[in-house]
Amino acid sequence: MLEPDFWPTPSPPAAFAERRRRLAARLDGPALIAAGESRPRNFQGNRFPFRADSHFAYLVGSAAEGAFEGAVLLIDPTRATLYAHPPEPGAALWTGPAPSLDELAARLELRVRPFEELRAPPNAAVLPPQETETALVLGELLDRDVEPGGGPALTGADAALADAMIALRLIHDEAAIAQLREAAEVTARAHRAGMARTRPGLREAQVRAAMEAEIIACGMSCSYGSIVSVHGEVLHNERHDGLVAAGELLLADVGAETPEGWAGDVTRAWPVSGRFTATQRALYEHLLAAQLAAIGAVRPGVRYLEVHRAAGKRLLEGLIAEGIFRGELDGLYERGAAALFFPHGVGHLLGLDVHDLEDLGDRAGYAPGRSRSEAPGDRYLRLDRELEPGMAVTIEPGFYRIDALLSDPARVGSLEPDLDRDALARFSDVRGIRIEDDVLVTERGAEVLTAAIPKRVAELEASVGG
Amino acid sequence: MLEPDFWPTPSPPAAFAERRRRLAARLDGPALIAAGESRPRNFQGNRFPFRADSHFAYLVGSAAEGAFEGAVLLIDPTRATLYAHPPEPGAALWTGPAPSLDELAARLELRVRPFEELRAPPNAAVLPPQETETALVLGELLDRDVEPGGGPALTGADAALADAMIALRLIHDEAAIAQLREAAEVTARAHRAGMARTRPGLREAQVRAAMEAEIIACGMSCSYGSIVSVHGEVLHNERHDGLVAAGELLLADVGAETPEGWAGDVTRAWPVSGRFTATQRALYEHLLAAQLAAIGAVRPGVRYLEVHRAAGKRLLEGLIAEGIFRGELDGLYERGAAALFFPHGVGHLLGLDVHDLEDLGDRAGYAPGRSRSEAPGDRYLRLDRELEPGMAVTIEPGFYRIDALLSDPARVGSLEPDLDRDALARFSDVRGIRIEDDVLVTERGAEVLTAAIPKRVAELEASVGG
Repeated sequence: MLEPDFWPTPSPPAAFAERRRRLAARLDGPALIAAGESRPRNFQGNRFPFRADSHFAYLVGSAAEGAFEGAVLLIDPTRATLYAHPPEPGAALWTGPAPSLDELAARLELRVRPFEELRAPPNAAVLPPQETETALVLGELLDRDVEPGGGPALTGADAALADAMIALRLIHDEAAIAQLREAAEVTARAHRAGMARTRPGLREAQVRAAMEAEIIACGMSCSYGSIVSVHGEVLHNERHDGLVAAGELLLADVGAETPEGWAGDVTRAWPVSGRFTATQRALYEHLLAAQLAAIGAVRPGVRYLEVHRAAGKRLLEGLIAEGIFRGELDGLYERGAAALFFPHGVGHLLGLDVHDLEDLGDRAGYAPGRSRSEAPGDRYLRLDRELEPGMAVTIEPGFYRIDALLSDPARVGSLEPDLDRDALARFSDVRGIRIEDDVLVTERGAEVLTAAIPKRVAELEASVGG
Repeated sequence: MLEPDFWPTPSPPAAFAERRRRLAARLDGPALIAAGESRPRNFQGNRFPFRADSHFAYLVGSAAEGAFEGAVLLIDPTRATLYAHPPEPGAALWTGPAPSLDELAARLELRVRPFEELRAPPNAAVLPPQETETALVLGELLDRDVEPGGGPALTGADAALADAMIALRLIHDEAAIAQLREAAEVTARAHRAGMARTRPGLREAQVRAAMEAEIIACGMSCSYGSIVSVHGEVLHNERHDGLVAAGELLLADVGAETPEGWAGDVTRAWPVSGRFTATQRALYEHLLAAQLAAIGAVRPGVRYLEVHRAAGKRLLEGLIAEGIFRGELDGLYERGAAALFFPHGVGHLLGLDVHDLEDLGDRAGYAPGRSRSEAPGDRYLRLDRELEPGMAVTIEPGFYRIDALLSDPARVGSLEPDLDRDALARFSDVRGIRIEDDVLVTERGAEVLTAAIPKRVAELEASVGG
């Protein structure tokens, strides 16, 4: 444990009240926002920690006591009421004193009534819940089918509610930004701890443990399944059994989530031995330049697709400089050369979800009228809006040598003559690297929330091995 | 990290084949055993780690690659077939190479077919899945209602299948015992790390982090939500924000689960300062004597209720010795005196679930014809069978000063004149302690799987603070 003296700060109740007021002002009719329920792990009595639905967490919170489990917020243009389940008699013995509904009301500065009093207006809008159980509850309340899962097919009042939530949540308020800063701070601690813990001979799981321990110690949880792997070329690698050997690069994609649900999301790659080889260093410097170019492109009014392309083009410039590609930059880029080594988007919205608002499909990430590109370099991009002050995004280009791509003629296509596989082979000690920061869009450009995490070569080399 | 050189050992495929063979021999007709699915955390793309249903994990396994997600085992008296979803094309890019169904078949020594080929026999028995999604899938396969959740209401072939699984899983085979030993070993590491980390001024979360880091570093997960609290009197306390002060006792109920799903479940309580006070020590010694008495009572043929009573009576003997109760032991016990401070059962089955087979309600814990007692000291007991060699149970008596109980005339009842509240007040520095070990029933009696974890006063005092 490096710095044990951090503890999360709760947002003030007024922040939630203001969000409810702003949502109500955008609504034409009533809406039901469900908190959802904790999910059983292997039997009903052994559950994953309760984590409120993000829309509910935005408007009410996500308290640890479980008082929000199964609760529903009814909000309409004139007022908001939380319908919650009162603590069960005798539950205090098992889970400690739980707030009564009156105490909850006082704490939240919100009208709170017993769940059984909820009479849902038949025309109430809902958002798609993430579990079938909650979908069934909402369906019964409204006497119509409510489908769980993603939301591109929303219609009518449900679609209007989704768009209202998106409009609010896209632009982070002061309380949200404070939460994102705390998530970034603890994420930074985790990465520094991971670097300090690294040495040859460990398993990936041991570095992961050091990182997650920081997050747990600071009263947070992991905002997604940690990736800590010497096989960074597997983009969502969830295995941690590999041995960490000298000469390898270790990729760690680990983020902290505040108790209220706000996410950090950071990736670093560092040399296990504490020293980059010349080839690792060369590619890493190109990738870093690409990431800095993308961050430099972030400012209000810029289309995120251009941020993505700034990263891809700068990376490709590096690959040309190393002789991996031969040819002219823009032409190669248009033909998908960058995507052969960087086959994902440069980032995504960040907020209460690590891919913020992804429960609503591409509705949040893509401006009305826009949809995903078919171009090989752009199709995985989760976000393509004009940036505005108050948005938070990740910036996370990567370089990966993925056999499944590089050996697939359908992927390499017409690039084969332009790709110098001998030059590429010289970089065989780089399998997969990614550099990811959390960025707040401000009037002046990008503010990197995770700037405290070592990223330059010398900083990383000084941080590995404690 | 104390001892980083542990890594879990997988069970041999032959062990699973033997379990399937033994289940088939007990069945009159076909059965479907569903693996279940991973559960979304806050959106569909961000999920809790997949953890196979325990019955499936018993018969097939619970591999990390996700190859079992959504799979169903069809087993009948003549053969077993796993119907699984083939890896999606392109998934290798994101999650790395996944085994083909043929590779899975070779690895598992089991017939594996694509899920779409599954034609479920209409008379197939099922067990209640833990999530609605899987219940809906099974219901569609069988064209009947399948209810998720607990199983006391099972009938017909479903009930027979449940009883067959219970008969198998109650008595652990060699592979299961090997898994339980590994879970116990890593659980031991976690507790030693927690003791070493403890010092006044920390938050509970920091001790929890040190314990869970050991579990993660050893390639395991937590078998249940960790309790690490100076408020041990809240039995299922899930908060970790409290400060750990000198003079207090810290209770930690933390267990490791192997990648195949086998659980450890251990509680220790230790002094934050490294020294028990005289009053803490006195009560702790009585509780330890109670726990050892219960362990000493474990042997084949003994009814678990008697193990529970052995603990309660030995604890009560201590309370009488300290002057907290006045009167005659057996009479006080029958009137619920022990239960006023020890209001839960002495333990439960342990196996693939931390409360093993609790998905089937009391069907596993209570022998046919038995049901829960109404007696105050016995009603929370989750297990009341005659013990047999190969069973694993926890032994976990506790002592708690719970205001909600002690101030409730309905609970104290006729014991009030026998309770010396002044004598009790002398022990105000003991709020809640519990001592829990994992015990294997052998021909000779109890083998304590978690015996390596400090438990005696001198051992604990030597272990706190590293």
